[in-house]
Amino acid sequence: MSGSASSAVTPRALSRRSRGVRGSAIRDLLTLTARSDVISLAGGLPAPEFIPGDRIAEQARAALAVPGSVQYAETTGLRELRGVLAHRESGRIGRPVDQADIVVTHGSQQALSLSAQVLLDPGDTVVVEAPAYTGALQAFQAAQARVHTVPLDDEGMVTEELRRLLESGLRPAVVHTVSNFHNPRGVVLGESRRHELAALAERYGFWVIEDDPYGDLWFDAAPPPPVAALSDRVLRLSSASKILAPALRVGWLHGDREVCRAVELLKQGADLCGSALTHRIAAGLLADDAWMTAHVDALRSGYGSRARALVGALDDAFGDTLTLSDVRGGMFCWASVAGSAGAETDTARLLDSALVEGVAFVPGAAFGTGEQDLSSSMRLCFATYGEDVLTEAVARLRRAVDRHG
Amino acid sequence: MSGSASSAVTPRALSRRSRGVRGSAIRDLLTLTARSDVISLAGGLPAPEFIPGDRIAEQARAALAVPGSVQYAETTGLRELRGVLAHRESGRIGRPVDQADIVVTHGSQQALSLSAQVLLDPGDTVVVEAPAYTGALQAFQAAQARVHTVPLDDEGMVTEELRRLLESGLRPAVVHTVSNFHNPRGVVLGESRRHELAALAERYGFWVIEDDPYGDLWFDAAPPPPVAALSDRVLRLSSASKILAPALRVGWLHGDREVCRAVELLKQGADLCGSALTHRIAAGLLADDAWMTAHVDALRSGYGSRARALVGALDDAFGDTLTLSDVRGGMFCWASVAGSAGAETDTARLLDSALVEGVAFVPGAAFGTGEQDLSSSMRLCFATYGEDVLTEAVARLRRAVDRHG
Repeated sequence: MSGSASSAVTPRALSRRSRGVRGSAIRDLLTLTARSDVISLAGGLPAPEFIPGDRIAEQARAALAVPGSVQYAETTGLRELRGVLAHRESGRIGRPVDQADIVVTHGSQQALSLSAQVLLDPGDTVVVEAPAYTGALQAFQAAQARVHTVPLDDEGMVTEELRRLLESGLRPAVVHTVSNFHNPRGVVLGESRRHELAALAERYGFWVIEDDPYGDLWFDAAPPPPVAALSDRVLRLSSASKILAPALRVGWLHGDREVCRAVELLKQGADLCGSALTHRIAAGLLADDAWMTAHVDALRSGYGSRARALVGALDDAFGDTLTLSDVRGGMFCWASVAGSAGAETDTARLLDSALVEGVAFVPGAAFGTGEQDLSSSMRLCFATYGEDVLTEAVARLRRAVDRHG
Repeated sequence: MSGSASSAVTPRALSRRSRGVRGSAIRDLLTLTARSDVISLAGGLPAPEFIPGDRIAEQARAALAVPGSVQYAETTGLRELRGVLAHRESGRIGRPVDQADIVVTHGSQQALSLSAQVLLDPGDTVVVEAPAYTGALQAFQAAQARVHTVPLDDEGMVTEELRRLLESGLRPAVVHTVSNFHNPRGVVLGESRRHELAALAERYGFWVIEDDPYGDLWFDAAPPPPVAALSDRVLRLSSASKILAPALRVGWLHGDREVCRAVELLKQGADLCGSALTHRIAAGLLADDAWMTAHVDALRSGYGSRARALVGALDDAFGDTLTLSDVRGGMFCWASVAGSAGAETDTARLLDSALVEGVAFVPGAAFGTGEQDLSSSMRLCFATYGEDVLTEAVARLRRAVDRHG
């Protein structure tokens, strides 16, 4: 080491921004629950057997035969992929989407974090749902925003409550919603509420970030048209992680062109560009309409069966003592300890007993901002394991609750 | 659209941060010069024929046979890759690097942008070299830092000038250097200056970001040991983009554990994790010592031959009227119009004539902060094309200069 110890100055502290960011309890749990003896319902991991590995390998071979697949890509994403996504999103929102209004991001998490940086100055107000997607909380904390919450009920964000906050003077720059099969709450934003949210965005001049990685994974009926179909004040985010594979790291943002251009500029500085290789793999798969239709049908059926297995086992094991979300799609069931037992339950502490029994979940508090008491709830992912393993997981959870007392 | 036009409120403006970020002239040029009739010496693109496409395809096949390669990865990067990188970096800096002190990032640009966010509060001072790597300027602008410059000469950053600034009271939080085969200036930081920089970092308590994507690409002699070998106040950044393939999007950061942990937390919010697929491909190639040695030897020889071809053709065509950097490695030659003609030359305007003739370069001003006059210089990349094409590019450049008058 250079310099004498006596003259050395302690390096300065890390930035306020980095000191203000809370780690993701879920990412930490992923490490904790990598133990092979733990059945982890904590992560939001797609089922390995539902990820089309053979098709990805085939597309990788085809992609690597195309010059340019190993080179730097355009910052907004491989042109072919943006073309496929423009077609896809046009169908979703019912009007033509220009590929200039799409930015491919490193998973939809990057779309969220870059949008937050584009739309928010430190101290600006953002509204999230309660409970909230933890990745959104992290992105908004990193942007040093002031976070307010609006509760969810069985029809998603309670837009009446949002309206009341706006009428009483709250002026958010951004309202974030997971409109379909909410993470962690499982619910779908009702159609009239989508209209209400769009109308409020136009009346009060805020941006809606509609975060929709799960919309394709419905079990019985497709969700209503996206909020983005109802207003151009909406930035719509989605992802290939849940329908193809997380390792492609392909998410996207579409909406207002000026916002997309600003996201592109920040992405230049953030990481230059995505992977031309994984973009080409994703483009090849998403463009194959017949295969995609069959593949997503299989996901709906497979995940639907797992959801029913988990809910059935929980009903059998816990009856009325556990209140479950009405699981209609996505990957998560939200379970709350009912009645007076709920008031006495801290799922963060229950997790210790659960780990002893060999099962993991995410305690409700991980999805909070501290404004609400989520301590009697937990998020259970039904996507990762088959029905038999889910049944065993519930048996372990039952033993954990008994042990916990 | 919901809401009546009369009641609609204009959406709020974009954030100050996003309004303050300048686009990369180089990324814009990449789009401009994608024309097939233009020989572009503007991008820093590796030669397609030097990218080991077959080995990447082979590793992709092997990777896709391993469970987990299509799933979410740990935020700090695939464990196998961190292990290979720890071994590699230990060899570079001459002391053991723990894999806990490495974060794999989405190219080294992400390492730069996340480090900037971790180390800098808005208004903090950062020192860059003049001319500077444009990606560093973007990352520091996005962090809303105050940017000062220290000039480069043939031995890299003039550390005497940095010392003078420090003695006169400048207190940077970060000093950024491209220590080996500087982008855009081509120079290598001299050994005694490395010691001086490390000593200044310890004396004045700033962090050095040592950005080293080109260090392996030396032609005649390896550069001196990294600054990171001399002080633990150094965060060392490197990349697989120039030695393997940009599309892997594999860069890395190693150094102080607290900084690495903070980078990990911000990366959770920025994009959750990298691609387990491309991480595994990179790990497989970087771990194959015999193949890597032969491969990097071939790169050195191939790029060295191209560098000599470009420099030789420029000497023949321009003689003393163009001053060239002493090209000893990397991918770039820095050329400045000499003498009184230099004072009258604006390479940004020369570029228009060059594009008419079918050749492109990056005007010097793109690498400036406005403090220095770089308008008589240009960056020429010799890596992308073979010797014959480089010779033709110089003939076009000669015609462009004649046309420009």
